[in-house]
Amino acid sequence: MSERNIRVEEIDRRAVEDQEVEIVERKGIGHPDSICDGIAESVSRALSQTYIDRVGKVLHYNTDETQLVAGTAAPAFGGGEVIEPIYVLIVGRATKEYEGQKIPVDSVALEAARDYLAEHVPELEFGTDIVVEARLGEGSGDLQEVFGEDGATVPMANDTSFGVGHAPLTETERIVLDAERSLNGEYADEHPELGPDVKLMGKREGDHIDITVAAAIVDNYVDGMDEYDEAVQSVRQHVTDLAESYTDRSVSVMVNTADDYEDGSIYLTTTGTSAEQGDDGSVGRGNRANGLITPNRSMSMEATSGKNPVNHIGKIYNLLSTDIAETVVAEVDGLRDLRVRLLSQIGRPIDQPHVADVHVVPEDGVDLADIEAEVTGIVDRELANVTDITRRAIDGELTTF
Amino acid sequence: MSERNIRVEEIDRRAVEDQEVEIVERKGIGHPDSICDGIAESVSRALSQTYIDRVGKVLHYNTDETQLVAGTAAPAFGGGEVIEPIYVLIVGRATKEYEGQKIPVDSVALEAARDYLAEHVPELEFGTDIVVEARLGEGSGDLQEVFGEDGATVPMANDTSFGVGHAPLTETERIVLDAERSLNGEYADEHPELGPDVKLMGKREGDHIDITVAAAIVDNYVDGMDEYDEAVQSVRQHVTDLAESYTDRSVSVMVNTADDYEDGSIYLTTTGTSAEQGDDGSVGRGNRANGLITPNRSMSMEATSGKNPVNHIGKIYNLLSTDIAETVVAEVDGLRDLRVRLLSQIGRPIDQPHVADVHVVPEDGVDLADIEAEVTGIVDRELANVTDITRRAIDGELTTF
Amino acid sequence: MSERNIRVEEIDRRAVEDQEVEIVERKGIGHPDSICDGIAESVSRALSQTYIDRVGKVLHYNTDETQLVAGTAAPAFGGGEVIEPIYVLIVGRATKEYEGQKIPVDSVALEAARDYLAEHVPELEFGTDIVVEARLGEGSGDLQEVFGEDGATVPMANDTSFGVGHAPLTETERIVLDAERSLNGEYADEHPELGPDVKLMGKREGDHIDITVAAAIVDNYVDGMDEYDEAVQSVRQHVTDLAESYTDRSVSVMVNTADDYEDGSIYLTTTGTSAEQGDDGSVGRGNRANGLITPNRSMSMEATSGKNPVNHIGKIYNLLSTDIAETVVAEVDGLRDLRVRLLSQIGRPIDQPHVADVHVVPEDGVDLADIEAEVTGIVDRELANVTDITRRAIDGELTTF
Amino acid sequence: MSERNIRVEEIDRRAVEDQEVEIVERKGIGHPDSICDGIAESVSRALSQTYIDRVGKVLHYNTDETQLVAGTAAPAFGGGEVIEPIYVLIVGRATKEYEGQKIPVDSVALEAARDYLAEHVPELEFGTDIVVEARLGEGSGDLQEVFGEDGATVPMANDTSFGVGHAPLTETERIVLDAERSLNGEYADEHPELGPDVKLMGKREGDHIDITVAAAIVDNYVDGMDEYDEAVQSVRQHVTDLAESYTDRSVSVMVNTADDYEDGSIYLTTTGTSAEQGDDGSVGRGNRANGLITPNRSMSMEATSGKNPVNHIGKIYNLLSTDIAETVVAEVDGLRDLRVRLLSQIGRPIDQPHVADVHVVPEDGVDLADIEAEVTGIVDRELANVTDITRRAIDGELTTF
Repeated sequence: MSERNIRVEEIDRRAVEDQEVEIVERKGIGHPDSICDGIAESVSRALSQTYIDRVGKVLHYNTDETQLVAGTAAPAFGGGEVIEPIYVLIVGRATKEYEGQKIPVDSVALEAARDYLAEHVPELEFGTDIVVEARLGEGSGDLQEVFGEDGATVPMANDTSFGVGHAPLTETERIVLDAERSLNGEYADEHPELGPDVKLMGKREGDHIDITVAAAIVDNYVDGMDEYDEAVQSVRQHVTDLAESYTDRSVSVMVNTADDYEDGSIYLTTTGTSAEQGDDGSVGRGNRANGLITPNRSMSMEATSGKNPVNHIGKIYNLLSTDIAETVVAEVDGLRDLRVRLLSQIGRPIDQPHVADVHVVPEDGVDLADIEAEVTGIVDRELANVTDITRRAIDGELTTF
Repeated sequence: MSERNIRVEEIDRRAVEDQEVEIVERKGIGHPDSICDGIAESVSRALSQTYIDRVGKVLHYNTDETQLVAGTAAPAFGGGEVIEPIYVLIVGRATKEYEGQKIPVDSVALEAARDYLAEHVPELEFGTDIVVEARLGEGSGDLQEVFGEDGATVPMANDTSFGVGHAPLTETERIVLDAERSLNGEYADEHPELGPDVKLMGKREGDHIDITVAAAIVDNYVDGMDEYDEAVQSVRQHVTDLAESYTDRSVSVMVNTADDYEDGSIYLTTTGTSAEQGDDGSVGRGNRANGLITPNRSMSMEATSGKNPVNHIGKIYNLLSTDIAETVVAEVDGLRDLRVRLLSQIGRPIDQPHVADVHVVPEDGVDLADIEAEVTGIVDRELANVTDITRRAIDGELTTF
Repeated sequence: MSERNIRVEEIDRRAVEDQEVEIVERKGIGHPDSICDGIAESVSRALSQTYIDRVGKVLHYNTDETQLVAGTAAPAFGGGEVIEPIYVLIVGRATKEYEGQKIPVDSVALEAARDYLAEHVPELEFGTDIVVEARLGEGSGDLQEVFGEDGATVPMANDTSFGVGHAPLTETERIVLDAERSLNGEYADEHPELGPDVKLMGKREGDHIDITVAAAIVDNYVDGMDEYDEAVQSVRQHVTDLAESYTDRSVSVMVNTADDYEDGSIYLTTTGTSAEQGDDGSVGRGNRANGLITPNRSMSMEATSGKNPVNHIGKIYNLLSTDIAETVVAEVDGLRDLRVRLLSQIGRPIDQPHVADVHVVPEDGVDLADIEAEVTGIVDRELANVTDITRRAIDGELTTF
Repeated sequence: MSERNIRVEEIDRRAVEDQEVEIVERKGIGHPDSICDGIAESVSRALSQTYIDRVGKVLHYNTDETQLVAGTAAPAFGGGEVIEPIYVLIVGRATKEYEGQKIPVDSVALEAARDYLAEHVPELEFGTDIVVEARLGEGSGDLQEVFGEDGATVPMANDTSFGVGHAPLTETERIVLDAERSLNGEYADEHPELGPDVKLMGKREGDHIDITVAAAIVDNYVDGMDEYDEAVQSVRQHVTDLAESYTDRSVSVMVNTADDYEDGSIYLTTTGTSAEQGDDGSVGRGNRANGLITPNRSMSMEATSGKNPVNHIGKIYNLLSTDIAETVVAEVDGLRDLRVRLLSQIGRPIDQPHVADVHVVPEDGVDLADIEAEVTGIVDRELANVTDITRRAIDGELTTF
């Protein structure tokens, strides 16, 4: 056992699953804020990979500030058009030269954005429906920490930072998270009329769960109000089926509640995202690192997407604490709710946090003393392997929003 | 008594003041994120006022997405210079024409930004040290809700939104909040060498409070390392004195801990903000509506700054819940900790929330039943006067970050 | 015969062909200034066509101000890369709404730029190697003049404007013009190593013609200095052959004279245009409407590219005067040099210029009196058909640079 | 006498003063194109001076591509307002670092633009009515040529370039040039209602001169249509008086001919320039280096404003040829018209042009042979002092537009 400062104790509240009211939100992958998160993180990954490929290690950069300015569109059944393009400004710092070698950071960023959008918001024509610019200032040079083909060093904390993770997800959280992934996954494959801008709000009161979905329908694939309504009902049915397979609680699903068929006010889009018409977006304004917005739980304000995964403690600790929480819950029985918080200590290696506190709500009949050592061991092991987080972030194995 | 759905109950946790570990952060007024919050909110106020002056009521707008791209500077004792200007992009929507009358929303936004910066980051020369652009798309027309010279109507909730407020502040919170205000207030008046980019992190463990301050020193007012050190020590003393007047706990204050005098690596700036050198900023990434970042408490992800205070539920509920919490604590004795949450109900007036729940930690010996009616009455009264929040936001009486 | 004010007289100078020194320049299609001209004119044509397709006539617009900001590149034998993208700002005015119908002028402009670049500078990847933005302000509404599916009206001159055209081209002019077209035409088809940024300067002193060519070589198609040199020599041979087929004068052709093989300073590019590395560009800074820069001849300062061909007198008169000059020379024998100038009269239809003066240098033995009537007749006929110029400009039959 | 290749011969045409039709135009200092020329040249001068002050000599830069995007305004008698600001993009290259010293080229550029606008278009509020950005790429390093506190070297020509100058001005040219200067000089001092955007077109047919003036009137200083009309009549009278003092020919002056008082369509502005409402601008699109657009004379397409005066041959030769022409005419009697052309020779010092040809129209009774040596001597002397042009351009003694 290391000398890491790991504390495991019972939390002084009920499990979120047992609280009376619970609110959960997820902004889908095509939401303007998520588009920014996605671009920022794909730019980050592309820069890391470019640095490793070219100079053998990751250099200094930070690209966690993408801004999206909404466009204007004129959707119409059968196919409308973009009137004024969406504008995206990628902001950040990146090392542009290393030992005499120029690194094309702007080109790397633009290509990453292009590829990301082509995959995730395919109806957006790059360069005409959406114009992307990069303003990457010169980074402050070499990182002290090394991550590359020759291995990795554990960075020093240069800031007081805080990460928090939770597990397991509540039923409502799982429904909200998986419904969005399902809609934007296999559902969308068979239903091209569903755009990627799907936003889900889950609200549980006692044993009733309300799921409210705002789903952008793509005009090109619906020929009239009837087909639009079909599309909406189909989403409702899909989410209902999924939700009911997750819970025994009663579930109500509402889709596009603001629609007014009479006056033709519906959620019809040309490109599948509300960014086409008035909805701006920004990194760090939407989902937390675990993919959800959960006012019932502690959250970090830190934007995770776009940050350098080699040395940005906020990013690392948010990803790591989530990973620890999930690992503990997967390996240890008897935990109804668990929260991991990591707090950095300036000037010490980040695998030695100032404190790693684990607050648990054991299941009925479980005694914390019986599992404490096991939990501590997992936390200790995960901290020891902190640079795995960096590698997995670069490889795209960890989601950040 | 109205029929508002107000619930008052004990919270199932200790008061934050009594928890073992507490973390509190405040990004000062000159921090890049706060600069964005400040510009966004001042643009919002200027637009509201312009609409009222010209058409008698507030029209549709939303300006909660300002992006700051850092510049480059070469600070030097006695006075350095900006090398590459800071760039700020004000993003949003605003109604540009009403009944044939053009509203100069871009000019209003730029002037608001100019005036705000002149007051709060005075070392920044507008147009040369910092270049500000506005990209305000056309708003979607008239608001259904009315707020203007002829009175105000209570808007309908058109979204499921959530606001949360807390009171009273813990000692650590008060120290962090008031130290920043004091430093950027009377202290800066007498100490022009202190720039407005002051960031404070408070960490309490049991009965010891650590305050870590990052304070941008303005090069024009310090002539060498000795004067720089004096400036830093003076800040340390000021914060120590203030902290000790707030608490009987032990307090340690550290200022600019990353400085290395040997190799000349210090926190010296030309303009008083780290935005001059590599630190980007964005709305909603920093302080919550109560001026603090408090991982120990429930927080809303909603950016409050820049939103339309007439009908944006997220803004109104965050400001209102904070106001309710403070009012209750001021008027009712015996409360050690209190959290107010407001959850909207789509389609109903916002003075009729889906639920207003008040969770309290009573002081020892206080019975919640004895004060419940009083608390409920205050919440009810505040909800009835919800449009006061709009007025006070427009008048600048409420801070949003 | 009409009552148009047409004057035909001898010019008081020698034919340019007979002057001692002659200078001629052409910036090829891939030159940064020409890229701007090309984008501006393609945007203009696309807008005209869009207006005709959607509302049956051309509405007000003017897009004659495209600005190109050069990028940075790292060319290398076998294939280099763009480091920092080229930035292009399309500037102008265009009517965005007509009788309730929105016209997507920004999207039309961006698509026109994309298509133009794909055809003419194919190595530039749109959106990553070159980022294009459009800032099109609202046009001032409907044109008074009509051009569309229901016919055309002759517009009134609302400005004093001036157009000038010349014919026939001198040998030097023909060599410079056709060499560029040939290089960027059939030659480039077989020689992908030649980029479109080809600039030719012809200088004739007496009976010797020097042709200086600056030819951007594309790195992807040359594997080393030998292949580069081959590419350069091949261009030299091609231009020499072409020139010698046009003239009996002695000809010297130099290509990439600034190259220094010793220190590796050569004209190698990744994308085929110097815009990738430091050369900015702008509309109206390069070739005149006849495709050449000819200091020996009268020239109009008016930028022709991007202007509205329905009512912009400067554009119409420059294109028309060139067309008249070419037509007269084609139909009338005995003309060694001819200049047509058209000067507008404010408030009169543009087919009634204030004065159309035709200055000619007859061939030896030709009496102007014998051909004057024929010349006048052609000018009269061409003026009567002035709206043909508009149609041909929209159809892309007339080049503007 | 040097061995410079100077040729003096009679020109094979009449003096412009004696031609039947003459056209002359000048875009005043507040015209959008002139604003761009003025900013570009003031940025150039500021950069030169900054380099001299900091490193003792001028480094590589080129800033000849400023683009102005027009704004929107709502002028009104007594004072209107800007609705959407004018946007100006300063484009170019400039050396940002020299021997480890950073040069704040962006800040220098923005300050130069601010100061220039404050002096010449004072109604424009910098940063709000007009937003200026600079995109200055890295220059290609040190200039080979030296110009600085330790003297100057004569640069080598690295391009085939061409400059042309004329003297003396014709009556029409002098009227157009001086009327604009007078209007924007002492006249404007006493008549604040006259904005700097004054455009003059002179057209002479035989012995009648028409002067057409477009004069932007500033709304803040006129309270109604009567005052507007007074302002227009006063300009007309001023130009008429000036013109009549310059010529015995008959003169007609028209001001704001497009005005229609009935329907209120007049040339009223809030800021004194048409850039506030729809008129874009660009460097090099307006006046030539002598301040005029003269289709009757040879002109260079080269933009003079903003170019580096140390080594840009086009700029130097245009300024120098104009200076030579004026000097010859001032010192030598008997010249009715004179044109100086300078053609560079790649690889030779620019004081050794490939050819300097001087074409003259002597006055009646003057024999060219009698004055040829004198003319040659002046040209030779001026060429020998070519670096004076650089100095005078930096000092602002030479106008470029």
